[in-house]
Amino acid sequence: MTVSYAHIQGGVDAPQGFLTSAISCGIKNPDATRLDLALIYSEKPCAAAATFTTNRVKAAPVKLSQAHFRKGEIRAIITNSGNANACTGLIGIRDAKAMCSAAAKGLKLNMSQVGVCSTGVIGLPMPMQRITPRIPELVAALGKNQGSDVAAAIITSDTHPKQIAIEVEIDGHPVRIGGCVKGAGMISPSMATMLCFITTDAHLTQEGLQKYVLECVEESFNRITIDGDMSTNDTVMVLANGSNGMPTIRRNSSAGKQFAAALKYVMLHLAKAVVKDGERVTKFVTVAVQGARTYLDAKKVAEAVSKSALVKSSWNGGDPNWGRIIHAVGYSRARIREELIDIHINDKAACLGGLQAQTPMDELREVVAHREFSVQINLNQGSATYEMYTSDLSPEYVDFNRSEYAYWKQARKDGLV
Amino acid sequence: MTVSYAHIQGGVDAPQGFLTSAISCGIKNPDATRLDLALIYSEKPCAAAATFTTNRVKAAPVKLSQAHFRKGEIRAIITNSGNANACTGLIGIRDAKAMCSAAAKGLKLNMSQVGVCSTGVIGLPMPMQRITPRIPELVAALGKNQGSDVAAAIITSDTHPKQIAIEVEIDGHPVRIGGCVKGAGMISPSMATMLCFITTDAHLTQEGLQKYVLECVEESFNRITIDGDMSTNDTVMVLANGSNGMPTIRRNSSAGKQFAAALKYVMLHLAKAVVKDGERVTKFVTVAVQGARTYLDAKKVAEAVSKSALVKSSWNGGDPNWGRIIHAVGYSRARIREELIDIHINDKAACLGGLQAQTPMDELREVVAHREFSVQINLNQGSATYEMYTSDLSPEYVDFNRSEYAYWKQARKDGLV
Repeated sequence: MTVSYAHIQGGVDAPQGFLTSAISCGIKNPDATRLDLALIYSEKPCAAAATFTTNRVKAAPVKLSQAHFRKGEIRAIITNSGNANACTGLIGIRDAKAMCSAAAKGLKLNMSQVGVCSTGVIGLPMPMQRITPRIPELVAALGKNQGSDVAAAIITSDTHPKQIAIEVEIDGHPVRIGGCVKGAGMISPSMATMLCFITTDAHLTQEGLQKYVLECVEESFNRITIDGDMSTNDTVMVLANGSNGMPTIRRNSSAGKQFAAALKYVMLHLAKAVVKDGERVTKFVTVAVQGARTYLDAKKVAEAVSKSALVKSSWNGGDPNWGRIIHAVGYSRARIREELIDIHINDKAACLGGLQAQTPMDELREVVAHREFSVQINLNQGSATYEMYTSDLSPEYVDFNRSEYAYWKQARKDGLV
Repeated sequence: MTVSYAHIQGGVDAPQGFLTSAISCGIKNPDATRLDLALIYSEKPCAAAATFTTNRVKAAPVKLSQAHFRKGEIRAIITNSGNANACTGLIGIRDAKAMCSAAAKGLKLNMSQVGVCSTGVIGLPMPMQRITPRIPELVAALGKNQGSDVAAAIITSDTHPKQIAIEVEIDGHPVRIGGCVKGAGMISPSMATMLCFITTDAHLTQEGLQKYVLECVEESFNRITIDGDMSTNDTVMVLANGSNGMPTIRRNSSAGKQFAAALKYVMLHLAKAVVKDGERVTKFVTVAVQGARTYLDAKKVAEAVSKSALVKSSWNGGDPNWGRIIHAVGYSRARIREELIDIHINDKAACLGGLQAQTPMDELREVVAHREFSVQINLNQGSATYEMYTSDLSPEYVDFNRSEYAYWKQARKDGLV
C-alpha cells in the first residue's frame, strides 16, 4: 500500500489541542546552553498508548511510565536528554517521580497522568538540583508552534532533530499526526537511546490506540538496527486527544485502517530517520527477504544480515560483498538451501543459485557507492517476506564509542559519584 | 582443575608417527612466496574425529570432509589458505575432490582417507591450475620437524602462526598432543575462518576420540568470539594414531579423563591464541558469569556481553563501562534481576546490586588499560556458571574489513570470474 500523505509544518505540536515547551537546564554539563528538558501537554483528556524496551534492565523512567500508562489517564509527557536515569536504583525512581510530580503540579494533574522519558548516560544519578527547580518555568513556557524545540531537546549523539507532521482526511475529518524521534546509537546503553513521541488529534479509544501502536511499532521501530544493541530506555509514546471533533474511530473499521496506515507512515518515516542519522553512519540499506518458508525464517535472515559486523563493514567500504551476506544467511538459523539463494543489490544480480552472478563487479560497486540502496535476498523456498532497515558500520562509530569518561568526570564535579 | 603440562617443541609434528609438509603455490596471488598448501599424514591407521561449522552455508571442503570423516578411515589432511572454496557450487566440490584425490594418489590411500580444509576469500573458484600440479611435490616433501610450516601455511589475516605441543604421562605412557590453529576474523566469511588441526600419538577408538573432541571443542572453540560472525569453513580435525604403543584408552576410564583434560588444555590454548591474534585486536577479555539460575542463562549472558559492539568499543577505549555491560546482560534474554547484579573487573567492584560501586574510577581504568583482564558478572540467582573469551572491537577492525576488492581483481586476472 503506497498512500502519499500531505506533510505539514511542525511535529508533535501540529495536531490540534497539544501544547509543548522546552528549556535548557545544563543536565549533561552546567555550562551547556542546548535544550535538554521538554514537555508535551494535551489540553483535554486523551487516549494514550506506549511501547517500552524489552531489555530486562529498565531505566527508572521506563518503570514509572509503565505504571502510569497502565492507569490510562496520561495527559502529559516530560522528557530530558543528557542522563538516562538507568541503573540508578531507588534514587532513580525518586528522581523520575520528582519530574512527574513537579510537572503535574504545574499542570494541575495527578502525578500518574504524566509520562516520563530520559536519555543519555547510564549508571549516573540525575543532577536533580539543575532540573526540579526549572520545571515551573517549563510549564509556563507551554505554547503552540514549539514542536521543533521538543525534537531538539531530546537528541544526544544525533546530528540533527528529527520530526514529521502529516494531515489526512478520514471519514471527512482532517486528522493530524505529528511526531519526533531521537536515536543515534541504536541501541546504545549509555546514550540509552531511542525515544519517540507522537501526538494526534484523531479520536480513539485507549484500547484501539494501543492496538494500532503495537502493530505500527512492529512494522517500523522493530525493523531497524544500527549496532544491534538494545537500550534500557527505548520508548514510543502516542497521545490521541480527539480535538478534531470527529467521532471515535472504531477498531477494524475502514477509518481505523486509514488511521493505522497513517500512523505507520509517520512511525516508518521516523524509524528510517533514526537509521539515517545513526552514529557515524554513511549508508542506509533496506534488507528485503522474500521466498522464505515462514515469516520467522524471513525475519531471522533479515536480522542476521542487518546486524553482521562484517556485512556492515563491507558496505562502509563500498564493497558489494555477497559472500558475507550469504554467510550471514547461513548462520541465521533459518531453514535455507544454499543452492537456491539469489541476492540482488538494487535489482542487479550479485548471486544466483548460491553462486556469483554474471553482473560485472563494477556495476555492483557503483550501486553500493550510493548513500542508499537495497539488498534483496530470495530464499526461493516459500512466500514469506520481511524487510529491515540498517546502516553500515564505520571505523568512526567504534572510535566514537570508545569512552564516556567525560560523563563520569562531570558527575564527579556534580558530587553525584 | 589446574594441571600444568610440559610444553615441547613443535606442533602437529611433535607426536610420533606423523609427517608434515608445506609449500608455496601462490593461491591468493601468483607472485606471493608465502606457504599456502600443507599436508598432515599419519604413518599408520588412526582414529580421526572432527567438528565442522554449524553455518548452513558450508564450504565445499567442509561438505566433502564430513563425508570422508563419516567413513572413518582418515589418514591425512590437505589444507590451503588464500581461498575458502565456499559458495562455489559443483565446481567447488570438484576442486576439493581433486585436492584429496591428488594427495591420496601420492600417499597410496583412497581419496576418502584424506580430509580437506580451505580458508580465504568466499565465492571465488579455486585457482586449481596453481594447486593440483604441485601436490606431488607436497607429498614428496613430507618429513619430521615441519609442523611450524603447517601452522604458517594456514594463516590468512592472522599476524603470526599459532601452534602448541605438550607431553603428558598417562598410565605410564608418554602421550604427545600437538596442534595448530588459524583464526583472525572470528568468524569472517571471506577469511572463512577458523581451522584447527591436532595430532596425538595416544591410542583411542574412533568413538572415544569423537566424544572427547566434542566435549573439548564445547569448552574451548565454542567459547570464543571476536566479531560474532560464524564462518562457512570452521573446522577442527584431530588424528590419534597410537604410535606411542600404549593400550587403547577406554572411555570413562581414569586414562580417558587425563587424555580429555590434556586435549582440552591444547584446544583452550589454541582457542585463546585465536582471540589474542584477532583482527586488529588490542585486548583479551575473559567474561566469567556466575550465579545464574541455569547453564543456559549463564551462557546467554556471557555471549551477549562478549558480542556487544558497544561493550567491545568501550574496552578498546580503556573505558571500564559497566553500564554497557549490564545493558547487554539485560537484553541477553536470560532471567536476571537488575538489583542483584554484581560486576567486577579483575576482582575490583564496578557495580554492586545493579548500582555503581565505590571503587575509584581511576582504579578501574587502570585495570582496563591492561592488554588482558577479566570481567566477572554475578547474577546472584543460582549456581550456574559460564566463561567466554573475547576481544575489544577497534576502528582498525572495521577499516580492515571494508573491502575485498583486491581478491576479486586477482580472480579476474586468473580468468575465474
